[in-house]
Amino acid sequence: MVSPVIIQKVIDGALQEPQPDLLAIEEPLEIRLGFGPIDNRQQRSLSVTMRTPGADGPGADQELALGYLYAEGIIREASDVVSCRHCVQDATKQGNVLRVELQPSVLIDWQLLERHTYASSSCGICGKASIDAVRASCPATMTSGGFRVDAAVLQRLSDRVQAAQRAFSYTGGVHAAALFDADGQVLMLREDVGRHNALDKLVGAALWNGQVPLQEYGIFLSGRIGFELVQKAWMAGVPVLVAVGAPTSLAVEMAREAGITLIGFMRNQRFNVYTGVERVVVAEAIGYGNK
Amino acid sequence: MVSPVIIQKVIDGALQEPQPDLLAIEEPLEIRLGFGPIDNRQQRSLSVTMRTPGADGPGADQELALGYLYAEGIIREASDVVSCRHCVQDATKQGNVLRVELQPSVLIDWQLLERHTYASSSCGICGKASIDAVRASCPATMTSGGFRVDAAVLQRLSDRVQAAQRAFSYTGGVHAAALFDADGQVLMLREDVGRHNALDKLVGAALWNGQVPLQEYGIFLSGRIGFELVQKAWMAGVPVLVAVGAPTSLAVEMAREAGITLIGFMRNQRFNVYTGVERVVVAEAIGYGNK
Repeated sequence: MVSPVIIQKVIDGALQEPQPDLLAIEEPLEIRLGFGPIDNRQQRSLSVTMRTPGADGPGADQELALGYLYAEGIIREASDVVSCRHCVQDATKQGNVLRVELQPSVLIDWQLLERHTYASSSCGICGKASIDAVRASCPATMTSGGFRVDAAVLQRLSDRVQAAQRAFSYTGGVHAAALFDADGQVLMLREDVGRHNALDKLVGAALWNGQVPLQEYGIFLSGRIGFELVQKAWMAGVPVLVAVGAPTSLAVEMAREAGITLIGFMRNQRFNVYTGVERVVVAEAIGYGNK
Repeated sequence: MVSPVIIQKVIDGALQEPQPDLLAIEEPLEIRLGFGPIDNRQQRSLSVTMRTPGADGPGADQELALGYLYAEGIIREASDVVSCRHCVQDATKQGNVLRVELQPSVLIDWQLLERHTYASSSCGICGKASIDAVRASCPATMTSGGFRVDAAVLQRLSDRVQAAQRAFSYTGGVHAAALFDADGQVLMLREDVGRHNALDKLVGAALWNGQVPLQEYGIFLSGRIGFELVQKAWMAGVPVLVAVGAPTSLAVEMAREAGITLIGFMRNQRFNVYTGVERVVVAEAIGYGNK
């Protein structure tokens, strides 16, 4: 359920020595429905979701599939499922495809089902295929030159963003994405119940203003950071991504590949740097020969 | 961006008088791509996302569409878009369908795009169609009889769930869904980076155990509550849903229809009851003739 990573904390403007930390694993799971005898291999892809694999024991993916099929009204009881196994024929998908065989008596209304499912941005049919596909349309890896931001500026961001969040102040129930410059000025802020929507709105507005690629800006996010948010930032050319919450394993992996500075757990006077620490200007670095 | 609602707070076990509050609005937006002359009406649905409409001014949906198309690599600059308008021909969809016309020079690789999008549970092509479709496969509205839970029991839940959250304690980056009984015992807990996955896993495990419908249980969720989580709880027959965060407008609407008791903002010694207050047993009720 967790993946090790080396992070650097910044506390009161001072960069700490690199230290190990743990990330929640995020990987795609494709659920396929199989029909007829298994050697016929007739199957249809039902959904792909970004999930934490292996959580809660080895049966977690099976539980997820069972619960999903039940919520969608496809099965009515556990015995509607004949078998529920990870596909093994495609080694590159690494346990991320689950094939579910249903009793022949289970009737599936595909038309109704299509009205029940909706597409969301990012990801793809399988982790590898998806990340490759994203990479194909993403810009090149960003260089470490150019935009830099002071740790003290970053630490003031939370308050500034919160002051600008209209809908949050009324409801406590929306996410924000905010564009900031090297001085920590919040130039634009967008809110939405969906984290990815807030970021899409912000990038859309910047695109409209002719500001994309956003090479001289950072983006502040009010929640956690998953894979899809890093992908969107990469596409928009944003070199620094700051979040109040935790990043996932795939978010850190993609940020490293994109050359993005990824900061999480932005709290009062402290934050974690996961990638691209060279863009963070600090007053002092602890443990770098000056101990 | 916000929708008014009447809630009842419970503070230190005492039910307060009903009072107005505000919810973040959650509604589906379908983005369609249009081709050729507009009177030909050739179009293809690209995605449906649950978003907050009208947020950040009247152009928010256009910004969302623009940012989404950019993140997916479909457009490279704002001028790739000829027009971006809400469909008006279908009055029932109430501004929830946006048609985007692209320049003829924009080439779309639908195959790549399909690998970029993934299906998620719940919702549908349009708000009305979707909720109707969900209703069709959902059980009947729950009656108010049966399961009840003491306010004091609810207030102890957060601590109990947090103590059981293994992955969260290591990463601070996963959501939990926990099954509890009338005594506040946490019987089962599932974790995942995705809120809906954690709930799917929990319901899947309960289904496997033969416990569904979960009429004598409540479910505790570590985050906010959107429409899809209420829908999943309804399908599983859970009468009480408790969340640490805020519910959306659509979540409250659906909970009311389902007959589910919906509780949000569960904090130390206080919480908000949005629907089904009759299942919450309180020590005293303030303002009910006993002031």
